Amino acid sequence: MVAESIVNEKIWRRRKEEFLRRLQEDEEIGYLDADIKDILMMFFKREKSFTMSSCSGRIVLVDSPMPWMRDPSSVVFKKHSPISVEEVRPIIEGPVVWRLWLVVTGPIIHVSTLDLNEAVEVLEIAREAGLKHSGILSLSSKGIIVELMSGVRLTILLRDKGVRVVEDDKLGEVVSVANEALLEGKRRLDALRDALRKRIVT
Amino acid sequence: MVAESIVNEKIWRRRKEEFLRRLQEDEEIGYLDADIKDILMMFFKREKSFTMSSCSGRIVLVDSPMPWMRDPSSVVFKKHSPISVEEVRPIIEGPVVWRLWLVVTGPIIHVSTLDLNEAVEVLEIAREAGLKHSGILSLSSKGIIVELMSGVRLTILLRDKGVRVVEDDKLGEVVSVANEALLEGKRRLDALRDALRKRIVT
Repeated sequence: MVAESIVNEKIWRRRKEEFLRRLQEDEEIGYLDADIKDILMMFFKREKSFTMSSCSGRIVLVDSPMPWMRDPSSVVFKKHSPISVEEVRPIIEGPVVWRLWLVVTGPIIHVSTLDLNEAVEVLEIAREAGLKHSGILSLSSKGIIVELMSGVRLTILLRDKGVRVVEDDKLGEVVSVANEALLEGKRRLDALRDALRKRIVT
Repeated sequence: MVAESIVNEKIWRRRKEEFLRRLQEDEEIGYLDADIKDILMMFFKREKSFTMSSCSGRIVLVDSPMPWMRDPSSVVFKKHSPISVEEVRPIIEGPVVWRLWLVVTGPIIHVSTLDLNEAVEVLEIAREAGLKHSGILSLSSKGIIVELMSGVRLTILLRDKGVRVVEDDKLGEVVSVANEALLEGKRRLDALRDALRKRIVT
């Protein structure tokens, strides 16, 4: 397999247009995180890149046997900005089927690149920004998919069915740790913005 | 850049021999997890792959502001098999500089491949085994580095400096969840073994 021949350029360019349209629609509806939009646009402005999906980082409460499970699992709270004890308390005190996990994730961005050189450059930019868990997920005619991700991730067990693992008077500690992690994720996003800007050819 | 020319075959083959020697030394010293050795050997038996490092999954207690930080951070407990409340209790009750985290990680294996086709096949094998966070980390003349990793990961906050976030009577729940996660990691390793075996050409 020769690298140049992996991606079909015609298909890739069509998809880039399609994902740009989707991005603009998401923005109009208000789906798009404001703190990530300019970063996504910087990828689109690169000749050989575009973004497929993104999350700027978030705090989630999940009712699930284990935090990595999709099924059976339900997200009972989700926020892209710092949380308070008052927001979280009623959920911990409410019904829990499996276990209640507080999950903080840093930024995650999926980039499609036209060739391998561009994928490697995107990886270098990501590393520079402290997104050290980034990697190429797949290579096909539709594009080379690069996942940008940091090690910023918390999965804190709050309740195990009826048993409250974290008592009410310790909730303040957990909430403040979660907010700290969320902000660290946002800092990595700022670093990514800087690393992308540095490479803009003017 | 043409894929065939990324890796220098001579350098790569020399490194493969070197890492095989290292693996055998690690085994003699007793460094190597017994439950992962046959899997590593299956990679070495593939013409275009070898493994550079591995962990079969483990439970760790870390004293650190955040679990992803290397510095300042100290591992105060480490085990590759299920833990008990009795093992963990003295550590939680002992001195803590930052925060005490119980971190469970699933298997992680770093594979070096000679070309892109082999990297893609290794990724396919990994996906098949449920190691869904696998990806190509870097490409250079020394080899294409593929990281095999699952989403199995827990980071549970036990203590925040002087404040015990998880009280002693809830330790049983946390230990049992940690052991459950560790075993799920080992199951993914079994699935990887099966997926590798299926592809052995006899």
